[in-house]
Amino acid sequence: MSEIMETLIRRGFLWQSFEIYGGMAGFIDYGPLGNGLRRRIEDLWREFFVVNERAVEIDTPTVCVEDIFIASGHATSFTDVAIECKKCGRVFRADHYIKEKLGIEADETIESVKEIVESFDLKCECGGEFDEPKPFNLMFETKIGPGKGKKGYLRPETAQGIFIAFKRLADYFRDRLPFGVAQIGRAYRNEISPRQGVIRLREFNQAELEFFVHPKEKTHPGFDTYANDRVRLVDKNGNEYDLTLKEAVEKGVIINQILAYFIGKTRRFLLKAGIDDARLRFRQHRDDERAHYASDCWDAEAFTSYGWIEVVGIADRGDYDLSSHSRFSGEDLSIFVPFSEPVKVRRKKIIPKMNKIGPAFRQKAKKVVEMLSSIEAKDADYVELDIDGEKVRVDREFFDIQEVEEEIHGEKVVPHVIEPSFGLDRITFAVLEHSFDKDIVDGEERRVLRLKRWVAPVQVAVLPLLSKGDFEAKAKEITVMLKAAGIFTEYDDSGSIGRRYRRFDEIGTPFCVTVDHQTFEDNTVTIRDRDTTRQIRIGLDELIPALKELLSTEKDISEFGVIFKE
Amino acid sequence: MSEIMETLIRRGFLWQSFEIYGGMAGFIDYGPLGNGLRRRIEDLWREFFVVNERAVEIDTPTVCVEDIFIASGHATSFTDVAIECKKCGRVFRADHYIKEKLGIEADETIESVKEIVESFDLKCECGGEFDEPKPFNLMFETKIGPGKGKKGYLRPETAQGIFIAFKRLADYFRDRLPFGVAQIGRAYRNEISPRQGVIRLREFNQAELEFFVHPKEKTHPGFDTYANDRVRLVDKNGNEYDLTLKEAVEKGVIINQILAYFIGKTRRFLLKAGIDDARLRFRQHRDDERAHYASDCWDAEAFTSYGWIEVVGIADRGDYDLSSHSRFSGEDLSIFVPFSEPVKVRRKKIIPKMNKIGPAFRQKAKKVVEMLSSIEAKDADYVELDIDGEKVRVDREFFDIQEVEEEIHGEKVVPHVIEPSFGLDRITFAVLEHSFDKDIVDGEERRVLRLKRWVAPVQVAVLPLLSKGDFEAKAKEITVMLKAAGIFTEYDDSGSIGRRYRRFDEIGTPFCVTVDHQTFEDNTVTIRDRDTTRQIRIGLDELIPALKELLSTEKDISEFGVIFKE
Repeated sequence: MSEIMETLIRRGFLWQSFEIYGGMAGFIDYGPLGNGLRRRIEDLWREFFVVNERAVEIDTPTVCVEDIFIASGHATSFTDVAIECKKCGRVFRADHYIKEKLGIEADETIESVKEIVESFDLKCECGGEFDEPKPFNLMFETKIGPGKGKKGYLRPETAQGIFIAFKRLADYFRDRLPFGVAQIGRAYRNEISPRQGVIRLREFNQAELEFFVHPKEKTHPGFDTYANDRVRLVDKNGNEYDLTLKEAVEKGVIINQILAYFIGKTRRFLLKAGIDDARLRFRQHRDDERAHYASDCWDAEAFTSYGWIEVVGIADRGDYDLSSHSRFSGEDLSIFVPFSEPVKVRRKKIIPKMNKIGPAFRQKAKKVVEMLSSIEAKDADYVELDIDGEKVRVDREFFDIQEVEEEIHGEKVVPHVIEPSFGLDRITFAVLEHSFDKDIVDGEERRVLRLKRWVAPVQVAVLPLLSKGDFEAKAKEITVMLKAAGIFTEYDDSGSIGRRYRRFDEIGTPFCVTVDHQTFEDNTVTIRDRDTTRQIRIGLDELIPALKELLSTEKDISEFGVIFKE
Repeated sequence: MSEIMETLIRRGFLWQSFEIYGGMAGFIDYGPLGNGLRRRIEDLWREFFVVNERAVEIDTPTVCVEDIFIASGHATSFTDVAIECKKCGRVFRADHYIKEKLGIEADETIESVKEIVESFDLKCECGGEFDEPKPFNLMFETKIGPGKGKKGYLRPETAQGIFIAFKRLADYFRDRLPFGVAQIGRAYRNEISPRQGVIRLREFNQAELEFFVHPKEKTHPGFDTYANDRVRLVDKNGNEYDLTLKEAVEKGVIINQILAYFIGKTRRFLLKAGIDDARLRFRQHRDDERAHYASDCWDAEAFTSYGWIEVVGIADRGDYDLSSHSRFSGEDLSIFVPFSEPVKVRRKKIIPKMNKIGPAFRQKAKKVVEMLSSIEAKDADYVELDIDGEKVRVDREFFDIQEVEEEIHGEKVVPHVIEPSFGLDRITFAVLEHSFDKDIVDGEERRVLRLKRWVAPVQVAVLPLLSKGDFEAKAKEITVMLKAAGIFTEYDDSGSIGRRYRRFDEIGTPFCVTVDHQTFEDNTVTIRDRDTTRQIRIGLDELIPALKELLSTEKDISEFGVIFKE
C-alpha cells in the first residue's frame, strides 16, 4: 500500500467498506476526515456553480423507473463488454483485461474484443478459456413494490432527474433562458471488476450542473472573468496547447464560448479546492470515445498515482436529452422564446370549403376540416391526410389557398444543455494526493497534508500545553467558542505537544491554538501555522476574527502578530 | 389537493417524481426551495448533533452486501404482511388495508391478518378474493457485479454502515467512551403500497446519530441544559404527562438520563427548525411495536394533516447491533475500558500437566493444553473440551488447579447504542405545514410561510422598485454583495412590487430589500419584514451586518432602523 493510502486509512479519511465482512471492490467509506473534506468541497462547488450562476439545486431520487433509461439510451447503450471464464466463472471487463495482459487498447465492441481474444488466444488467469464476449449493462437493477413489481434502476448520473423535471424547472425560471439546475448526490455504476481502489467506484458522488441555453446562444455573460486564464489543452486529435481561453475560442480549439467559460470556471474551482495546476489538463474526447448523448466533451484530468484520471467532464449534450424524453413521454419539453419584436410573415393558408366537405366525407368531415386547417399549405392538386391510420385524399375542389399576413411573437425552442459533471470522490482523492507532502522539521521527517485552509476537515486544533485541569478547562472553553463561531475545531489533550502538532500536520489542520502558561498571565494564546511551523502570540479577544480571515484567505500569520518561533 | 400542497408544488418545494412518465408512489423530488429548506435543516442538525457533541460524521454506501442484514436481522425481520388479490393482482399492505376498510388495528402477523381476512370475508377493491397473506421484505434488492453477482440491498437505515465500521471508529476516538457517530443520507424502504404522499416514501433522507456509551453509564454530561425543559410525554401504556425532563427521569417515566437528554435536545432542535411546540409530543413505543433491535424507544411525533406522525425515533439499541455483527463477522467489537485503578482478584487457574497429556492425547495434546489454559477453572473431577467438533473428556489427573492473584487493569465492554434517528423529509414537511399561515394585509388575504429565518431557502429578496436600468443595476449589485456575504439571496424584477412581496411571503423569505428613488439620493434601501410587513430604511453600509443579525436571531427590524411603514 502506498504511504499516502496508509495515512488516509489510519487517520480516518477513507476506509474499505464492509471491511469486517471481507469488503467489496468498488465501495468506500468516508471516515470523519474524508467526509469533512468532501463536504467542504461540495460547499465550494455550490458557491461556484449554483450561488454564483443563474442556477438552482434540486434533489431527486436515486431509484428511478425504467422508462427514463429507455428514453435516455442507458438501457441499451450504458454497457461494457464482459468476458467470462468458462472454467472458473470469473468475469472481467474486456478492454481492461486486454490492456493489462496484452498492452493493447481495444475498442469497446463485441467484434473487436472477440477478434483480439481469438487472435491472441487470450486465456483467463486461471488458464481457462473465455466464453463469447457479451455486453453487460452497468446499471444496478432493482424492483419497486411487491409481487411482479416494476423494474427500476439506480441512476447512473444525477442529470436525468433534472431533464425529466424540465417543465417544472422552466416554469420556476418563468421560461427565461439561460438557466442552470444542479444536483449533488449519489450515482451508481455496477462495474464489472473494479480494480483501481478509490477511483473506480460502483457507488460514487456526483455534482452536476445542467445549464440550459438557447441553441443559437452558446455564450456566457461571465466569460470575461476567465478569458485570460491560461489553460493546458489536449484536443481530440492529441494536439497539445497552452492557451488563454480567449485564444482557444478564437483559434477554434474550443468550439464555443460557453464550453470555454465552464472550462475556465472548472479550473478555478479545482485550484481553489486544492488541485495542483501543474497536474491538471483539459482533454477533449476523441470521436470514438464520446458518450452517446454528447456532441462535444472536454474532461478535466488530474495527474495522480493512477496516471491521468478524469475528474470532471464538460459536455455539450445538445438537445439529445430533452428531445428523447419528449418523444418517449409525449410531453412538450420546449420553451417558448419571444422575439425581441414580433415578426411579420406572409404564409399560405388552407381554407376548407365546408359546404363541399360535409356531403363528400360525411362522418370524417369534422376531422378533415380540422386537419386541413392545421397543416401547411402547398401548391398541389390535392393533399393526403392520415385519419386514424387511413390515408384520405382531399382534392383541390374541397379547399382554397389564401395568402395571409401573420404576426409571429416568438418560437418554440428545445434548449441545449451544457453539462459540467464533477466526480467528487476523484476530486477529493486527487486533492489529497496533491496536498500530501513531506519535509524536515527539527531534523526529523514530517508528513504534512497541505490542504487549502477552507477545505480542511479540521481547521483549528485547540491544545492545552500541559495535561493540567486549568489548561484543559481553558482549552475546552476556547474550543466551544470557536465552534460557536462556525470554525471546524477539535480539542486534543493526549500526548506531548510536539506529537500533537505532528498529528494535526498529518491530517491537514492549518492552525493549532495552544494554551500555555502565559495564557493565564495576559489572556493570550499561540497560533501555529501548519505549513511553516512558525508561531505567533495573539490576544484571545482577537482570536476569532484573525482565524476567520486566515481561514478564508492565504494570508501569512505574521500579519496577525509577531513571529516568536520560526 | 390541499391548499398547502398546491402552494408547495406550484412554488417549487416538492414535486411528484417521474411525473412525465406517470409518476410512482413513494418518491418525491425536492424542487429548488424544498431542497434549500431540507439542506438548511440538515446543517442545523449537524450543529446540534455533531459539532456540539463528542461526535463525528461519516458517509458509507447505500448499496450494501447481504451479510450485514443477515447479522442485523433485517433479512428476516424487516417485513410487512402483504395481501395479494387473486383476481386483479394488486398487493396491499395488510394492516393498512384492514384499518382503511374495517377500521381495525391488526397485529402485523400472518396469523392475525389471516384471521381477520377470513372472519370479515375481506375482499379486494375490485371484488376479488385475497390469496394467503405473506411476509414481504421491505429492502430493495439488487445484484453487485456481473454474472451471478453477489446479492446486495439498499440500506434500510444509515446506522448499519456505522456499526460495521465500529473498530475503525473506536480507534479514531482512541477507545474512549462515550462517542457519537452520525450519518446523513439516503435510506430505502420498498413499501408495499404507499398511499400517504410525502410522508410514506420508498426513498427518504435520514440523519442518524449512534451514540456509543458504557452500558453502566447511561448519563450525559449535558443533561442539565435540558433538565428543566417541559415536555409532553405519552408512555407505552398510553398515559400522558406534562413534565420537566428532570421530573420524568425521577418518576421513572423515562428510564434513564441519556434518553431524556436526547429527547430534550431533539425537542430544542425541532423547535429551532420550525416545528410548533403545541403540535409536538414524545410517545414511547408499546411493547408490541418496538423494532427487533430496540430495548426502549421514544418517538417525537408532530401533528400534521396526516394526524400524529413520527418524525424522530430515539431508541436504546443496547448492544444488539455490535454483538450481532461481532458474532456474524467473527470480529471482536468490544472496547477495552481501563479501571480508574487496577483491581486485584484471586482466581483459580488450570495448570495442565504436560508430561501426562502428551502421551495420552497425542496429536490432540497441543489443543488440549491450549484450551485448558484458557478456560475458567471449576472444582470438578473432569472438564469436557470441544476440539474441532469432538467432545473430549479430560480427567482431573491431567491438570492441577491453583489459586493465583492477578491484577486486572480493565475490562472488555461491548458499548450500548443510544440512537436518535431523524426522518428529514417528514421534518421538512411538518415544518412547512406548521409554518403555513394566512392573514389579511391591505384588506386582502395573504398566504405566508412563517419559516424560521435561518432555515428559509431564500433569506433575502432584492427588488428594484421600478423596472428601469439603474434600479435594476443597483439591485443586482446588492444581490452579488449579499451572496458574497453568504446570505441566500434572490433578485427579482418581474411584476409589481406588491406582487413580488406576496411571492416572497408565500415562499417564506423573511426579508425583502428594495431599491427605490431614495437609494440614489442617500444610499439607503428599505427592509421589509415578512411577518409584520413593516418596513425600515437602512444605509447600504449597515445592510449586511443588520441582515446577518436579523437572520440568526428573532430580533425585530425596529432594532435596526425606524419603522416608516406599518
